[in-house]
Amino acid sequence: VIGSQIHNLANKLWPIYRSITGPGFLKTLEILNENFETQIELHTFRTGEKAFDWTIPLEYEVEDAWIQTPDGKKICNFGENNLHLVGYSEPVDESLSLEKLQRKLFSLPDQPDAIPYVTSYYERGWGFCISDRERKKLVAGEYKVHINSRLFEGELNVGEVKIKGNSKKEILFSTYICHPSMANNELSGPCIAAFLIKYLEQLVDREYTYRFLFVPETIGPIAYLSRNLKRIRKHVIAGIVLTCIGDNGPFSLVQSRRENTLIERIVINYFKIKKENLKLYSWVDRGSDERQYGAPGIELPVCTLTRTKYREYPEYHTSLDDLFTVVTPEGLQKSYDWLVQLILEIESLRTPKSCIKGEPQLGRRGLYKQVSIKSEYGNISTLLHIHSYCDGTNNTLDIAIKIGLTCTEVKTYLDILKSHKLIKYC
Amino acid sequence: VIGSQIHNLANKLWPIYRSITGPGFLKTLEILNENFETQIELHTFRTGEKAFDWTIPLEYEVEDAWIQTPDGKKICNFGENNLHLVGYSEPVDESLSLEKLQRKLFSLPDQPDAIPYVTSYYERGWGFCISDRERKKLVAGEYKVHINSRLFEGELNVGEVKIKGNSKKEILFSTYICHPSMANNELSGPCIAAFLIKYLEQLVDREYTYRFLFVPETIGPIAYLSRNLKRIRKHVIAGIVLTCIGDNGPFSLVQSRRENTLIERIVINYFKIKKENLKLYSWVDRGSDERQYGAPGIELPVCTLTRTKYREYPEYHTSLDDLFTVVTPEGLQKSYDWLVQLILEIESLRTPKSCIKGEPQLGRRGLYKQVSIKSEYGNISTLLHIHSYCDGTNNTLDIAIKIGLTCTEVKTYLDILKSHKLIKYC
Amino acid sequence: VIGSQIHNLANKLWPIYRSITGPGFLKTLEILNENFETQIELHTFRTGEKAFDWTIPLEYEVEDAWIQTPDGKKICNFGENNLHLVGYSEPVDESLSLEKLQRKLFSLPDQPDAIPYVTSYYERGWGFCISDRERKKLVAGEYKVHINSRLFEGELNVGEVKIKGNSKKEILFSTYICHPSMANNELSGPCIAAFLIKYLEQLVDREYTYRFLFVPETIGPIAYLSRNLKRIRKHVIAGIVLTCIGDNGPFSLVQSRRENTLIERIVINYFKIKKENLKLYSWVDRGSDERQYGAPGIELPVCTLTRTKYREYPEYHTSLDDLFTVVTPEGLQKSYDWLVQLILEIESLRTPKSCIKGEPQLGRRGLYKQVSIKSEYGNISTLLHIHSYCDGTNNTLDIAIKIGLTCTEVKTYLDILKSHKLIKYC
Repeated sequence: VIGSQIHNLANKLWPIYRSITGPGFLKTLEILNENFETQIELHTFRTGEKAFDWTIPLEYEVEDAWIQTPDGKKICNFGENNLHLVGYSEPVDESLSLEKLQRKLFSLPDQPDAIPYVTSYYERGWGFCISDRERKKLVAGEYKVHINSRLFEGELNVGEVKIKGNSKKEILFSTYICHPSMANNELSGPCIAAFLIKYLEQLVDREYTYRFLFVPETIGPIAYLSRNLKRIRKHVIAGIVLTCIGDNGPFSLVQSRRENTLIERIVINYFKIKKENLKLYSWVDRGSDERQYGAPGIELPVCTLTRTKYREYPEYHTSLDDLFTVVTPEGLQKSYDWLVQLILEIESLRTPKSCIKGEPQLGRRGLYKQVSIKSEYGNISTLLHIHSYCDGTNNTLDIAIKIGLTCTEVKTYLDILKSHKLIKYC
Repeated sequence: VIGSQIHNLANKLWPIYRSITGPGFLKTLEILNENFETQIELHTFRTGEKAFDWTIPLEYEVEDAWIQTPDGKKICNFGENNLHLVGYSEPVDESLSLEKLQRKLFSLPDQPDAIPYVTSYYERGWGFCISDRERKKLVAGEYKVHINSRLFEGELNVGEVKIKGNSKKEILFSTYICHPSMANNELSGPCIAAFLIKYLEQLVDREYTYRFLFVPETIGPIAYLSRNLKRIRKHVIAGIVLTCIGDNGPFSLVQSRRENTLIERIVINYFKIKKENLKLYSWVDRGSDERQYGAPGIELPVCTLTRTKYREYPEYHTSLDDLFTVVTPEGLQKSYDWLVQLILEIESLRTPKSCIKGEPQLGRRGLYKQVSIKSEYGNISTLLHIHSYCDGTNNTLDIAIKIGLTCTEVKTYLDILKSHKLIKYC
Repeated sequence: VIGSQIHNLANKLWPIYRSITGPGFLKTLEILNENFETQIELHTFRTGEKAFDWTIPLEYEVEDAWIQTPDGKKICNFGENNLHLVGYSEPVDESLSLEKLQRKLFSLPDQPDAIPYVTSYYERGWGFCISDRERKKLVAGEYKVHINSRLFEGELNVGEVKIKGNSKKEILFSTYICHPSMANNELSGPCIAAFLIKYLEQLVDREYTYRFLFVPETIGPIAYLSRNLKRIRKHVIAGIVLTCIGDNGPFSLVQSRRENTLIERIVINYFKIKKENLKLYSWVDRGSDERQYGAPGIELPVCTLTRTKYREYPEYHTSLDDLFTVVTPEGLQKSYDWLVQLILEIESLRTPKSCIKGEPQLGRRGLYKQVSIKSEYGNISTLLHIHSYCDGTNNTLDIAIKIGLTCTEVKTYLDILKSHKLIKYC
């Protein structure tokens, strides 16, 4: 049922024209914020501002854009599908021959029905995207091109939501809202994130603090980190980039450069215990904002969770990446459930230390059968196994890996031990 | 021939009623001590004394115990088999119906001829153990139950033997004497230990100090360590629990929590070199006193050596664990030989450091063929191989693992190098 | 073509009688030095001088040596093949029966046509080497034995060539010139070394300093290191012993004791990337001067590069180890090419550190396609991959191993990043 709610939210956001800057970005944040209580905080950067090796680009706005064929028909109409316009196209109003127009058109011969997604953020120019089937129908003659766009000194924004927990240690979620109408490689991440925020807001006795970033991809994290790196580095113990996470593909993990961050270890253990399939990608397969979070000089412990990874499905970066065949309520529901489970795994992280030397006497606490007879005795109890690792050097995850349980399962036992004052949390 | 002597000792100890306290424990120590010269030292703990998370229980003594059937026949006679009485049964003298008696009886339907071994140390009550075949013969009627036992404020003991060597570094052996008449899971450990003490007493120029503990299982090490942990931790470099070590099963090792203690590494290397089969169990398979020695806050480098491990053979914890079919002179002999070999491996541990830079000139010391001809030359000699590792960071075992020899074999070469002043022992 | 030049050089050196001391050693150095500009520097050690555990032996010179058969025929003529004389044979002039002579003869029954190579450096005596086929023809009678040799208080030498680079960090090459007329196990190493020196002299902008040692095997490195160890240890970051490197066998590496020296890691990565076969030998298979460089108290990071390793080919240490069937221009050329490639790998070693935080903006530097469209975009560029590892902890080799490239390939990208001031070399 939450899968349908997430899918509805995605449908609502679908028509909005998003780019790395511009009104669509803010409008998207506004609609996302309708789904949870915490107010999204805006971080605003001015055009021309320096951010590490980068410069905040001009802001971009589009009124309308189309091509008129020699017989007066409007094609590549931005109003019908905002993928038709190459992102950050300059304003243009001119006539030109088909031959010259062809140099400004992008299509995919292998996918004749798909309108490709093309941008040109950092080099001025203009262009249109068209399905190859339509392109082939174009006849010689004079074409009128109209792009009513604006490139101006404005701003670039990052949206942030912080949900406090008992600990100042933070878990970072990062997802992007900078693509026009595409479903898996855009809406799946922020829509699920909105519902995770709602879940966390309602989670009683949160242990960790959660920070969600809604960014324009690449330039967003760079801008944000250029101002906040020290603070983020101080608190963030683990982070996750959410991308392409609404389809029905296998759960997948793009590993960090060091391949040993907390989330990676939790996720890998979890799938091993559950005997479910997890697809692993290495750092060299990366492609979303884990690139920035893991870059030299940043080096945050961030990995990426995805279903069918960017660049791995044919609909990627085309008009075929839609809310009908690619992203479904079922896919969104499964991803949401997985991420909620992951949050519970994270929430169960503690570093327990025995308050006693030697094994505890479980019997006098009613934690152990008093009369031992061979057939009823069985093996040493899991409670004793887990206590035996409580030497202050192993956390929930370390014990889970050693014992062969999930973190959540280990936590149940730890809480019993703690309630009997046999361990404390460091 | 030593196998038979150990078997004789086990036969002598067989009829004694042992429990975690009481006169049988001390009588057993007395008989064990007849086999070696060093006097066993007693560590005595009073009922009610605190020991880490535990409390020293009441002392326990049994005069006699039996059940009288409606037709006046005595069954479950403690005098005939001391397994009939549930350990730490309270005194009782009453008549009751078969129906009520059934609730106090323990038997094993799957092993109809076995009397099970049952105890109730830490919860008051009483009960009898009976073979399932006998139990099924019981007819309705009034049964007389007689238990003449005593539970009183007394003492619990641990027996200790220390055999000094050149070094203050100690090897700990721990074995238990707290079970009534059972062979593998009781007598095999202490009887072999007695003969190992005898062996060590006669060993010329012992390098290491050896400490043997004869304990009541679980509560024994806890009590002992609660008084002596600091001293033990200072000197003990490795330890071994001996249990179920008199049958003919494969040699087995229950690994410590860290899986890298000295004894484990020596034993694993030894079996690898000898190309013999060694069965490995992990920390989660533990069940004897390695539980206490390796528990949080104790963390001594102790593993367990066994043949067919507790809980792994059908006769375990029943009257079928006997000195005829389970524990034999051959089984005891093989285990003894193995442990003597292990002591020799331990005794060969040194950390050698070269007194020279570069390779030694073996030739002028008569350690190398003077005339080298291809067919007689062969490979670099083992002596040079071993010298090449004498950089002060590798001990006998490290070199043994790298070169593919046993520690004892490496030591032979080290002694040659040392006698020529090419190395010294750090 | 260089293979032929090296082969010609080996032919020129072939007839010279070399031993660990004596005029042949110096004559060999003189001829080697004709192939490069840097003057070979001599390190001279006097007979009786102490060198670690060793003593510099007497110097040795041979005028002639032969045996006269009962029918007046000269056999085992040193003038015809200098392998006939056991190395370091004392002068002798006497007649003796065949029976007594036999005790002074060495032959190989399994290789009836081979004259074996035998020495007796450190024990006085004399002997002759003869093919087993010739030996079997000897008839009873009186044999005249003539050895005109000299053993005297003289000197032992080591030749050294140093070629400076930008860095004081040094790469050590060591090869030996102490065997009489044998090709693979003698001439292949020094002849290739001479041409590597020539190559390095002509290499523009050398990064590292290279030190070549031409030594008598075993005693040479010991003598040299006994005087220069501190200096060598300060600068040498990696070293290579060249031996048996002129045949057509597979490229082979004798690993150091620690198995992780720079050269080993470079070579193993290189062959992995090139998908070529590399034969690995462990430290226990060693047999040339890696023995001394890796010995306790020396511990230099030196491994050995070879083709068919000493002791692994039937012609080893016999007259069959020749410049016709064993060592060929082709074999020498391939080894030379490999070693030049290895030098380029070494020269590419840097430790890069990003000058920026986050990913660089490749686009504005013209390093990245400006317009991204799915079909042209492909994966993250190798340039970004490599930059992502430039955190100051990885050197060229570490990155090469992680990315799956050779060091030389990684260096190309590093230089681009450096020219754009995106990284610096630590």
